[in-house]
Amino acid sequence: MRTVEWSPQGIRLIDQRQLPQKVEITVCRTVADVAAAIRTMQVRGAPAIGACAAYGMALGAQLSAEASSTTLLAVLEEHAEVLAATRPTAVNLTWALARVKKAAQAAAVLGADAIRSAALAEAEAIAEADVRANRSIGAHGAPLIADGDSILTHCNAGGLACVEFGTALGVIRAAHSEEKTIHVLVDETRPFLQGARLTAWELSRLGIPHTLITDNMAGHFMQRGNVQKVIVGADRIAANGDVANKIGTYSLAVLARHHGIPFYVAAPTSTVDLNIETGRDIPIEERSADEVRRIGGNVIAPADTPAAHPAFDVTPHRLVTAFVTETGVLAAPYGPVLSKAVASAQRMQPITGEQPSRLSATPRERVEV
Amino acid sequence: MRTVEWSPQGIRLIDQRQLPQKVEITVCRTVADVAAAIRTMQVRGAPAIGACAAYGMALGAQLSAEASSTTLLAVLEEHAEVLAATRPTAVNLTWALARVKKAAQAAAVLGADAIRSAALAEAEAIAEADVRANRSIGAHGAPLIADGDSILTHCNAGGLACVEFGTALGVIRAAHSEEKTIHVLVDETRPFLQGARLTAWELSRLGIPHTLITDNMAGHFMQRGNVQKVIVGADRIAANGDVANKIGTYSLAVLARHHGIPFYVAAPTSTVDLNIETGRDIPIEERSADEVRRIGGNVIAPADTPAAHPAFDVTPHRLVTAFVTETGVLAAPYGPVLSKAVASAQRMQPITGEQPSRLSATPRERVEV
Repeated sequence: MRTVEWSPQGIRLIDQRQLPQKVEITVCRTVADVAAAIRTMQVRGAPAIGACAAYGMALGAQLSAEASSTTLLAVLEEHAEVLAATRPTAVNLTWALARVKKAAQAAAVLGADAIRSAALAEAEAIAEADVRANRSIGAHGAPLIADGDSILTHCNAGGLACVEFGTALGVIRAAHSEEKTIHVLVDETRPFLQGARLTAWELSRLGIPHTLITDNMAGHFMQRGNVQKVIVGADRIAANGDVANKIGTYSLAVLARHHGIPFYVAAPTSTVDLNIETGRDIPIEERSADEVRRIGGNVIAPADTPAAHPAFDVTPHRLVTAFVTETGVLAAPYGPVLSKAVASAQRMQPITGEQPSRLSATPRERVEV
Repeated sequence: MRTVEWSPQGIRLIDQRQLPQKVEITVCRTVADVAAAIRTMQVRGAPAIGACAAYGMALGAQLSAEASSTTLLAVLEEHAEVLAATRPTAVNLTWALARVKKAAQAAAVLGADAIRSAALAEAEAIAEADVRANRSIGAHGAPLIADGDSILTHCNAGGLACVEFGTALGVIRAAHSEEKTIHVLVDETRPFLQGARLTAWELSRLGIPHTLITDNMAGHFMQRGNVQKVIVGADRIAANGDVANKIGTYSLAVLARHHGIPFYVAAPTSTVDLNIETGRDIPIEERSADEVRRIGGNVIAPADTPAAHPAFDVTPHRLVTAFVTETGVLAAPYGPVLSKAVASAQRMQPITGEQPSRLSATPRERVEV
């Protein structure tokens, strides 16, 4: 089961708003559908958003009947703007859009059909590279987890946040498959409850022992000695190693430091933004206050209560023990190390080979519900 | 409007599970009703629980037809055991029960009716003393709040947690009534959402500017410079100054220390337990995991997800900047200072004077809904 994948009917997504009550597949048939799916968090998680946006560009190219390369490139430019505007924090989104645009531009001399093929091939390459990166993150990160560890994670950095497998949860899965005895403390992650709804669901399916806690219990369990490692994902990593991730991550990093607990960030290098020097420059999405005032449609506060909803926060690099990327485990100083990792990952990228024809990429098996 | 009060019909409570959707008054007509109200958190907050349990003893005495002092004292002993077993962490509960038992014992030579009068008089004295203590806490604490402060609070330490006025919120109210421009950041306080449901409701009625946040946003707003003070209540304070309070308090204390923000605990001396040396010995209530898996009846996680629900945590005294009690603002070293404050508060207690006759204490005005 992939979180996001191409099919002849359009882009197939697991509708993450319905989990864990229902595993529902939604198909985005237009670029507007894709933009709405990202904006409303049917699909979320930086790597998944990146792949989804890339497929959105491929879809936009396929749906356009333009015969002129120039016009088709202009259409794609418009689609990229629409998709880029959906969510501001995860850099994988703009990174993936830029990659597809570049592939399309390179194919333009061969004509509009070549652009269509190149866009889809690039989207597929992004998705495949994400899967490989996740597996590598798992392999590199697993040795950080000791037998008997209880590991705290926040939000969902699992298969649902990526094309499949997961980043932070990928490390946990890899450690589990090495038959280490581990236990995961799952922050419920208000306001959107990705921990309670998605991470607990994934861990349950994987048979990995876990306990759900409210976000405000993390310090208590650290104080009691029940947390040996903290591992989270990332939405954007600045060149100096500052990390934007789901709101609450920064508090965990401070708590981990206070208790002398290692704090790891697991993310593919596609999440590193070398154009941004420090976390101060990362745009933090403000979402609707209604998502704080309500839970599952129920109002939990006086209806007119003012509420704040920064969707992310920034953890300074000095609170990060190490990054786990597809190129390996990276320790400080993060400035030089991250830029080297990005360059190394780019070299590892295979040249886009297959050129799937229009709307004919082999659909993967249907998701079993 | 009092959170808990005596009436000829029984003990009147604002049913706090219904807030903010409904202001519903419930009347406890038996000791079993009172125990259930405390256990199910219709009434909560250490001082309110204390007053409610004291009234429960008075109610038990009134309802008993026993003519023998000895038998009536034995009946009260049984009631005290039932009430003490409802919730383990807030020491005000056992403190109030002990006070009523002592008053009853002292009156026993005068006969069963004297026990009934003494029990009610003592319960009323406890409630009145709580109101006075809260006002004093407000008066002592207000100077700690500067004009322009943004103050973070957790859970509900307002009028609803006490007989009226509030402890942490009492300080905030007092500062507000001095016409200081203040703003309150309200932690929603999962799993029971006392912040979202109760504190936001109280602040709205009082016209004090506030913003609701999820618990995991606290660190982010501290990092951004949006928090000048943290002020919380307490459920039990050990002799050395360690504080048991609503789960999440300890995380806030660590975060406040990391950011150099003062962390104040506002509580009456009835919350100090000199019989317990350190926080290690404070019993921490474990509530149902269902309160974590569900919000307002809706399951938010896979239904079989294991979940933990420690209802309180312990903040070590070294993270507390000062205590605000009815005897004044107390700075470290807390050992000697707290025991002195308890002794001083006991001297301040008026001798119980009025002896309200059976079920005839003047009911206060009905709560306007």
